[in-house]
Amino acid sequence: MSKTSAGNFFEDFRIGQVIRHATPRTVTAGDVALYTAIYGPRFAVQSSNAFAQELGYPAAPIDDLLTFHIVFGKTVPDISLNAVANLGYAGGRFLAPVYPGDTLSAVSEVIGLKENSNGKTGVVYVRSTGYKSDGTEVLDYVRWVMVNKRDPGNPAPAPVVPTLPESIAPDALGDAVPLLDTANWDNDLAGSRFRFDDYVPGERIDHVDGMTVEEAEHQLATRLYQNTAKVHFNQHTEGKGRFGKRLIYGGHVISLARALSFNGLGSAFHIAAINAGRHVAPLFAGDTVYAWSEVIDAATIEGREDVGALRLRLVATRNTPCADFPYATADGVYADNVVLDFDYWALMPK
Amino acid sequence: MSKTSAGNFFEDFRIGQVIRHATPRTVTAGDVALYTAIYGPRFAVQSSNAFAQELGYPAAPIDDLLTFHIVFGKTVPDISLNAVANLGYAGGRFLAPVYPGDTLSAVSEVIGLKENSNGKTGVVYVRSTGYKSDGTEVLDYVRWVMVNKRDPGNPAPAPVVPTLPESIAPDALGDAVPLLDTANWDNDLAGSRFRFDDYVPGERIDHVDGMTVEEAEHQLATRLYQNTAKVHFNQHTEGKGRFGKRLIYGGHVISLARALSFNGLGSAFHIAAINAGRHVAPLFAGDTVYAWSEVIDAATIEGREDVGALRLRLVATRNTPCADFPYATADGVYADNVVLDFDYWALMPK
Amino acid sequence: MSKTSAGNFFEDFRIGQVIRHATPRTVTAGDVALYTAIYGPRFAVQSSNAFAQELGYPAAPIDDLLTFHIVFGKTVPDISLNAVANLGYAGGRFLAPVYPGDTLSAVSEVIGLKENSNGKTGVVYVRSTGYKSDGTEVLDYVRWVMVNKRDPGNPAPAPVVPTLPESIAPDALGDAVPLLDTANWDNDLAGSRFRFDDYVPGERIDHVDGMTVEEAEHQLATRLYQNTAKVHFNQHTEGKGRFGKRLIYGGHVISLARALSFNGLGSAFHIAAINAGRHVAPLFAGDTVYAWSEVIDAATIEGREDVGALRLRLVATRNTPCADFPYATADGVYADNVVLDFDYWALMPK
Repeated sequence: MSKTSAGNFFEDFRIGQVIRHATPRTVTAGDVALYTAIYGPRFAVQSSNAFAQELGYPAAPIDDLLTFHIVFGKTVPDISLNAVANLGYAGGRFLAPVYPGDTLSAVSEVIGLKENSNGKTGVVYVRSTGYKSDGTEVLDYVRWVMVNKRDPGNPAPAPVVPTLPESIAPDALGDAVPLLDTANWDNDLAGSRFRFDDYVPGERIDHVDGMTVEEAEHQLATRLYQNTAKVHFNQHTEGKGRFGKRLIYGGHVISLARALSFNGLGSAFHIAAINAGRHVAPLFAGDTVYAWSEVIDAATIEGREDVGALRLRLVATRNTPCADFPYATADGVYADNVVLDFDYWALMPK
Repeated sequence: MSKTSAGNFFEDFRIGQVIRHATPRTVTAGDVALYTAIYGPRFAVQSSNAFAQELGYPAAPIDDLLTFHIVFGKTVPDISLNAVANLGYAGGRFLAPVYPGDTLSAVSEVIGLKENSNGKTGVVYVRSTGYKSDGTEVLDYVRWVMVNKRDPGNPAPAPVVPTLPESIAPDALGDAVPLLDTANWDNDLAGSRFRFDDYVPGERIDHVDGMTVEEAEHQLATRLYQNTAKVHFNQHTEGKGRFGKRLIYGGHVISLARALSFNGLGSAFHIAAINAGRHVAPLFAGDTVYAWSEVIDAATIEGREDVGALRLRLVATRNTPCADFPYATADGVYADNVVLDFDYWALMPK
Repeated sequence: MSKTSAGNFFEDFRIGQVIRHATPRTVTAGDVALYTAIYGPRFAVQSSNAFAQELGYPAAPIDDLLTFHIVFGKTVPDISLNAVANLGYAGGRFLAPVYPGDTLSAVSEVIGLKENSNGKTGVVYVRSTGYKSDGTEVLDYVRWVMVNKRDPGNPAPAPVVPTLPESIAPDALGDAVPLLDTANWDNDLAGSRFRFDDYVPGERIDHVDGMTVEEAEHQLATRLYQNTAKVHFNQHTEGKGRFGKRLIYGGHVISLARALSFNGLGSAFHIAAINAGRHVAPLFAGDTVYAWSEVIDAATIEGREDVGALRLRLVATRNTPCADFPYATADGVYADNVVLDFDYWALMPK
């Protein structure tokens, strides 16, 4: 019996199966510094204890996407080691703030299975939940991946495809943000004079700047998340593969685009929910990421006068400035060089 | 009205204008570890809590240049996003030690404006001050940059050129260093048996070692400082630009040269002042930095028996060893491959 | 008299000489985060305070190899700056757990000297000891290096070659691990259902995954350890040298191979001793490291019911998957592309 894990294949998953993932991870100020060095975010709440404390946080929370990546990374050895493609995300909610010193773990439940008609692969839907060592849930999201079968001759399970929400309802947002004293929100320090009421649905924002990615950078990031997907790390095999080079972890692109979005969305300090996410095309080292955002919706949250919610579409491209907002045709065919289509709720001070 | 900041142009600055910069930043042990990983400094005071505490510090202070870079980085989006060139520094003083846990912010005052004769650009002089969240000032320096005009047709302001000190007076040094119990200074642990009295003006020191810079390294560093200057990050545009490649942040060179200077100046534990600094030529990834120092002056500080001050010229080159101390002609024409001319005061134990 | 250290040459060493090394170093959560980002280890004890505390640790200890690298790095400026080759390690023991906040220093004693017959170089044997600022010893090991003579005409010292243990005795293991409450060891969180009793001598494990190394990564790591060996950092000189490129610090390979070994040895949470280590061939940026392990021995430790010791041979290769366990002929000639032969004791929960 091999001591080495080869990961799970499509046949290994069953509806209702619950997988407790390794490795628990205490998040520290070191992780936060690396996150800053790798992406360059400038949101004041996550950057400054003093700024966060003025608002009512006990300390600066870590970046929401750092939480996401750490939780996601834990699921990889069990869920997607034999994945052909990471197809999408939906129904994601950030449920509690995470601070340096918190230890994060993850558990996934299999909620959908559907073999593909080719008999060689199938789609696995999991709901993954990140939680602290005291049991507090910090993040909950669904993703679905196309996973290889161990043996195409194995029979297909009865197909189960979960119903996923098109988006999270506004009143379900904000659990990861304490009630804030936004009278103390300082626009100068926050780097933006625009607040919730300044944005309107339909508005589109070019984030202007571009960021070129190096191999060392995405490898450092992906290892920091203890994400073991082979395609990100092994040039010896990837050099002989489909692209001839290592693939960059899709979450790396989300974090880069989110950091670029500061220029135009500087007060959008918190990602409250991930409605939908799709990695449209791969990114490679040497590529330059650009991004733009569209305001899809603006909503108040019942019982909260401090913050409002903007539903945003964050689109990232490679090697393509976004002054003309490249996206997709009405038929859903993405423009060349679009790499990310990410639909999320952000909170902003009123 | 665009939500995206395009930065300030020459016409946007007024004499006396005060700009409060985003983003406040809590410095942590994570930043210190990254600083060590990026440059490799070995000064004992900043490396060891135990060593620092033996001398009378409450804990190891962070590297003075880490403070500088964080403060400098904050000024970039407001001062130099449309800069053509970073022309120089002067009159810089480190005013208080900075420890992990401190939150740094920055403010700048415009103290000089002079349009260039071509009508397309002008020189902006700012005094930038870094301070902690309790108001303690930690750093104060002047820099001047050449900034594009938005429209060459706009009229020139009345020229104001500030008078800058040629150097900081010795008695103004040392505010960032508590009175030290240098009887506890351990030469072996500090890595040098040479102290203040062992150095004489005119002495020149070749720091021997060379350090090659990678794209990922300078990008990590510059993002860590939340410095948003586009030329450091965007190969897609820089590849079509004047040099065909990304420019390395000038401060990166200062930190590399300072780290290399440990070999020969191991007890020069603190940068007390920046008299003058000039980035003579650009540095690119793949270049190897070498450095040498000249002792310009040695001064005692009134009221302090613990430390003395050495005024040092730190010269860095690219791809050129410094055994013959490459510098400049008497006319001020720099030797090929000199990239940095940096005049500062360092403190050393007596 | 030059202020710059040129390092010690073979003639500078004497039997019994004790060298106190610079620079003391306070280890922090920042170092731990960087170590994770650079190698991607997933051992739960070092990753999670909560997991470690369940077992009886006060907090997560740092990775044993991080301790090793920091101690090793301090010895470089004094021992191996003029080294031609790092020949081997032996007799290494980890003596106390190290936690963030501890300050590490190092001292070395010269225990062997033997000039080579060419008269140009000699072998220096040192026992190096790492200790905390309170005097607690954390690591003790012997290494031997081939060092240049300053002048081949200088006479040879009387040869002294120390007797080195073939391996550390099992009952000398475990000082760096408190008695653990392994009833609280959670296999799911630890990422392996195999414990001490599941491994048998002779068993070989292919760790499957490969990791490609970038220049920026090994430079960041080696500077983090304040290791100043020139060959790792200076492309300007190495480009003209024997290999035409920078050499990767041998310890970097050990850490990569150890991190890869998680897949198959996930519960081998602690390196208790280094019996022998040899860098068989150099590694360069762009190479992909693979690894496999052989169980050499399995031993109980007197007085400990919580953990057992596995003696493991960890072999790393470059650009060569290890499904057929590449190693050496009976004559000791290593297979092509083997880069590391590392014999150590690991502790595992029973």
